[in-house]
Amino acid sequence: MPQLGLLPRRTWAALLSQLLRPPRAACTGAVSCHSQVAEAVLTSQMKSHPEKPNFIIKTPKGTRDLSPQQMVVREKILDVVVSCFKRHGAKTLDTPAFELTEMLAEKYGEESGLIYDLKDQGGELLSLRYDLTVPFARYLAMNKVKKMKRYHVGKVWRRESPTIVQGRYREFCQCDFDIAGQFDPMIPDAECLKIMCEILSGLQLGDFLIKVNDRRIVDGIFAICGVPESKFRAICSSIDKLDKMCWKDVRHEMVAKKGLAPEVADRIGDYVQCHGGVSLVEQMFQDLRLSQNKKALEGLEDLKLLFEYLTLLGIAEKVSFDLSLARGLNYYTGVIYEAVLLQSPVQAEGEQPLSVGSVAAGGRYDGLVGMFDPKGHMVPCVGLSIGVERIFYIVEQRMKSFGEKVRTTETQVFVATPQKNFLQERLKLIAELWDAGIKTEMLYKNNPKLLTQLHYCENMGIPLVVIIGEQELKEGVIKLRSVASREEVAIKRENLVAEIQKRLSES
Amino acid sequence: MPQLGLLPRRTWAALLSQLLRPPRAACTGAVSCHSQVAEAVLTSQMKSHPEKPNFIIKTPKGTRDLSPQQMVVREKILDVVVSCFKRHGAKTLDTPAFELTEMLAEKYGEESGLIYDLKDQGGELLSLRYDLTVPFARYLAMNKVKKMKRYHVGKVWRRESPTIVQGRYREFCQCDFDIAGQFDPMIPDAECLKIMCEILSGLQLGDFLIKVNDRRIVDGIFAICGVPESKFRAICSSIDKLDKMCWKDVRHEMVAKKGLAPEVADRIGDYVQCHGGVSLVEQMFQDLRLSQNKKALEGLEDLKLLFEYLTLLGIAEKVSFDLSLARGLNYYTGVIYEAVLLQSPVQAEGEQPLSVGSVAAGGRYDGLVGMFDPKGHMVPCVGLSIGVERIFYIVEQRMKSFGEKVRTTETQVFVATPQKNFLQERLKLIAELWDAGIKTEMLYKNNPKLLTQLHYCENMGIPLVVIIGEQELKEGVIKLRSVASREEVAIKRENLVAEIQKRLSES
Repeated sequence: MPQLGLLPRRTWAALLSQLLRPPRAACTGAVSCHSQVAEAVLTSQMKSHPEKPNFIIKTPKGTRDLSPQQMVVREKILDVVVSCFKRHGAKTLDTPAFELTEMLAEKYGEESGLIYDLKDQGGELLSLRYDLTVPFARYLAMNKVKKMKRYHVGKVWRRESPTIVQGRYREFCQCDFDIAGQFDPMIPDAECLKIMCEILSGLQLGDFLIKVNDRRIVDGIFAICGVPESKFRAICSSIDKLDKMCWKDVRHEMVAKKGLAPEVADRIGDYVQCHGGVSLVEQMFQDLRLSQNKKALEGLEDLKLLFEYLTLLGIAEKVSFDLSLARGLNYYTGVIYEAVLLQSPVQAEGEQPLSVGSVAAGGRYDGLVGMFDPKGHMVPCVGLSIGVERIFYIVEQRMKSFGEKVRTTETQVFVATPQKNFLQERLKLIAELWDAGIKTEMLYKNNPKLLTQLHYCENMGIPLVVIIGEQELKEGVIKLRSVASREEVAIKRENLVAEIQKRLSES
Repeated sequence: MPQLGLLPRRTWAALLSQLLRPPRAACTGAVSCHSQVAEAVLTSQMKSHPEKPNFIIKTPKGTRDLSPQQMVVREKILDVVVSCFKRHGAKTLDTPAFELTEMLAEKYGEESGLIYDLKDQGGELLSLRYDLTVPFARYLAMNKVKKMKRYHVGKVWRRESPTIVQGRYREFCQCDFDIAGQFDPMIPDAECLKIMCEILSGLQLGDFLIKVNDRRIVDGIFAICGVPESKFRAICSSIDKLDKMCWKDVRHEMVAKKGLAPEVADRIGDYVQCHGGVSLVEQMFQDLRLSQNKKALEGLEDLKLLFEYLTLLGIAEKVSFDLSLARGLNYYTGVIYEAVLLQSPVQAEGEQPLSVGSVAAGGRYDGLVGMFDPKGHMVPCVGLSIGVERIFYIVEQRMKSFGEKVRTTETQVFVATPQKNFLQERLKLIAELWDAGIKTEMLYKNNPKLLTQLHYCENMGIPLVVIIGEQELKEGVIKLRSVASREEVAIKRENLVAEIQKRLSES
């Protein structure tokens, strides 16, 4: 049968590509003879060059593709995270990538300017979701759900100046676990911290510490230091930067940019430099001005109970009460927490430690669902978010420094032949293996060389090869070859699937 | 220790919710005593009501949340799809949700108006991706990849009038498999059709048919019928609607809206009503006007070879050569295909069949990568997309009609106590089980009733309960209860994890 030769196909393709490049899409399908093609190519070249002189092909600023190698790493990390969420009895749900713009309004404080809006194309005003927490709260209110333990893995978008080297992107994946519902105090909160510990231990990222604080204590400190109430959230945003900026710079921001009196800033400074274990909680109870503040006292009492539960869960030594922790988001109302790695797991001797910031964070937000409910009905919530992008960055760096290789496919068997004109038999055989559920590949060539086929298996890490040729066909057998040992045995065709399954289950 | 009583917490929460509702976010954290709260509530109520008289809480038009029940169904479907892609040796990759707007230009023909653009917030002009194929081609060109077999599961966005009842949404999930590279003709194309068969069989959706055609045959028919070349793609879009519209309406669109001569439309009509098996391919070879068209002849030769391979792969009887198949997208250059269900699997007697349209589709697009390459270097590609939203709709309907229930969690063990003041012991025990990797839950209450705890297990389908009380603690045992049989046995605490793991592996 006459086939499309390689050359005519390529020529045609190259010509078509010229046709496809100019902006006028309508001319693409119109190729029916060579003279027309040549004419069209000439026309298109004349047209297209002045219009697109510098065609730069890239992803949008702050975003990236993930290669198959990166996807394998990403999926391993997500598997650890999601397994843990399931171990704690969570369901999952999904929400759209964008929400009505008004749903996101007044949830993010100073960060609201970082929300991506969609163009008004004659419909509703829409924005890309900024986190998974606000859509979750919207879901609960919309469906009048009063109780739910859910996880959600999904992308969120923030128009931040991307510092790509530290694993910060404008598009990134979040893994959230939240417990909604009215329960006895601090039991779900303690479980959230336990989950953070299990995930960070499970990912073997090295030693970590979880800082905890309480929004009510933060606000109590602001109140007794003399911060005007109208400035609480703005000052909170400044304090939140203490993990990236020194106290001097934060103080400057509070005084110069946010108009705080210098002596008020200094009083805050005395507090936010305190951190310690449960003993610091006791110490703060003794701070009479703080413990006379009703909200702060509630916060201290909750933290004391929390530490009791953390001890029972065996993770108290991983948790530190840290008064510098403030969390930037508006919606937190109670306990807040943030996990940091104590050292970079990939740091070589003499190298600067990699600064990766927090790798997990969360807190209690008892008011958020009520913001969506027309009648203001409340559903108290507590949750956490795993910073998978930063974790991904760390794991990727570690794999690079150890020269670890990953397989990007799961192929178990390769169908090969040493002979020409065996495509038909290879197709019959591969269909048999696919239908038996065996992960199988072959080369898309009529007459590939045996060596090329075996090299492919070695490069791709495929463990088994089945080889079919004239002789095997005559004898009703297939050769089964182990790529590692290079041993070959002949197996009756009818036993092939069973033998492969046996070998795969043993390995 | 003094605890936050439920009432004060709730009262505070209710008050705070009032505070949180008005648009001024700055006032949310400012609550330090009741009089202030009361005052703030009054102020906020006065402010907020005129501004938000009708607060409607919803997802954007054409989008939806997926509940945990729906997510279970979705994940089962995706698991079948992705397993098949992996069985065929595909890697996966990820691309951003949005692309530079110019990357999407001139790829989608008439459908371009359905692209979601992002607002210009002072940076690049961006658009949400419309499919996964164009980003894949962009990835190949950008990274100069000449050969790749990849799958991609991700959301895409199209501003279509949503017909939600048929499972069409503005945000939907696509599952794509593509083979890029210069290979011998029709071998990858045949594998794509095999994959569609495996997935549709695996999902048990009932009988299905895959229609195939070739863009070169479509264009050849247009040429010999007298369609001007400038109208090829527009007429192609009209023909593509034949699965939703009758010939009369399509003809009207071509003549009245697209200015085609009526006699040309009628000539097309004679062709597009033909469909059949490989014998129709032979018949078309005999159509002298068609087979004198070089491109159409190439298409016919490829289809003949394709049917030969489909026979070897054992799926030829599932595939029909259908001249009415045109596919709307601009970028197809060779073989095209679309799978349709032959009957609705949930159709009860006397009911109207559910119209779900195509459930999988794809084709060859040899020019797309070249559109992104500055030098126009070509990478021939062929691929398919599984319409998981429609499949999801069908499976969901079937489950509803059979009253099937799904578990939304995977919890294996529940920690219960019949006694008061046993929270501490429950926490210690549950931490032990979590640390052993056992999926475990308990109620977030200090003193839950035993019956409440056991009911929870029955409702949630949790198979095992471990019960700890005064007596068990004294004897160093734990009671292990099977929820189904209600049998209880006492097990030494140190053997508990092993016994649970044994029972779980047996079930």
